[in-house]
Amino acid sequence: MHAYNEQITLQTKKAREFINITPQIKSALEKSGFGDGFIIVTALHSNSAIFVNDEEPGLLEDLSTWLDQIAPVRDDYKHKGRFESNAAVHLQSLLLNHQAIVAFTDRRLDLGPWQYVMYAELDGLRPKRILLKVIGE
Amino acid sequence: MHAYNEQITLQTKKAREFINITPQIKSALEKSGFGDGFIIVTALHSNSAIFVNDEEPGLLEDLSTWLDQIAPVRDDYKHKGRFESNAAVHLQSLLLNHQAIVAFTDRRLDLGPWQYVMYAELDGLRPKRILLKVIGE
Amino acid sequence: MHAYNEQITLQTKKAREFINITPQIKSALEKSGFGDGFIIVTALHSNSAIFVNDEEPGLLEDLSTWLDQIAPVRDDYKHKGRFESNAAVHLQSLLLNHQAIVAFTDRRLDLGPWQYVMYAELDGLRPKRILLKVIGE
Repeated sequence: MHAYNEQITLQTKKAREFINITPQIKSALEKSGFGDGFIIVTALHSNSAIFVNDEEPGLLEDLSTWLDQIAPVRDDYKHKGRFESNAAVHLQSLLLNHQAIVAFTDRRLDLGPWQYVMYAELDGLRPKRILLKVIGE
Repeated sequence: MHAYNEQITLQTKKAREFINITPQIKSALEKSGFGDGFIIVTALHSNSAIFVNDEEPGLLEDLSTWLDQIAPVRDDYKHKGRFESNAAVHLQSLLLNHQAIVAFTDRRLDLGPWQYVMYAELDGLRPKRILLKVIGE
Repeated sequence: MHAYNEQITLQTKKAREFINITPQIKSALEKSGFGDGFIIVTALHSNSAIFVNDEEPGLLEDLSTWLDQIAPVRDDYKHKGRFESNAAVHLQSLLLNHQAIVAFTDRRLDLGPWQYVMYAELDGLRPKRILLKVIGE
């Protein structure tokens, strides 16, 4: 077992953005030199998420609307403070999960034809970090 | 670290079905010959999911009702097209997650007595693929 | 690849409690002696969950309220029986997920500054088990 670690930093221009990070993951896999293994993709923040799904713009719009319905911004959350994200974005992060494991075989990511690794920025406008830990041989 | 890869293909008769795939996972573990490690179980589609929970039929009925409440089929989603799934099933897939990691020790899956690895078909009636990547020694 | 396995058992005093298990995970990492790898943290029950997020008490209160809104206890679930949890807690467990993978590098957990590994007890008052499988070198 060998490990190759890389952190990527993203800074979005809007509070909420969905970004396809599959290219960065492919690039990390290439740099690792491994043929077979998996990549642990983890957002290092409690107000962002990682998910694997389609990246079609209409769907991402639906996802955005859905997050606001399921876990809306509210004034009466107990979690608030001057420098804190609204609790809503934490709940949205929990809904989507903060990580995904992407397997690879023969130097290629094991993703279906309509699957992409997506970063969900839920409270952006500042630099956010994602850890890519490539483990393989 | 060694890897054994297997793909299983399932075709359901209904659009939505929950299938206990623990037997297929046990079988892949056996074929791998590994004693200690873990299995990355990943649905290779954006309209299906993997989860670990009880398989009691009443509970699965409740889960089905819940998915329809939380992420109902709607006509006004932005994601639609002649060959596309309704956005609802993508949101349901995100809710449940598309993968699980199943650890094993001494050739046995590390599952609790009421835990099963379940495949959630959310838009079936055609062949769907699940990747089982067994990693161990 | 080497594996170090540990089970921790928790018994809460309330039906629902959120417990920061990061200290137990650090301790397991230390006992493993590994420098680089990852830990598969899995609740071995279908009515509890593992999540990674902030542990601020106000936020945990908001999470608790949210779970009751999204997947409330109801009398009309199909899943019921004398010794069974209400279906609500299973749905809450599915929402939060039953596991997380925690990477580590140079003997330190790869967590962001506001990320903790949390155990969500959703139907407690009896001993519950969590598997920590540390894999690394």
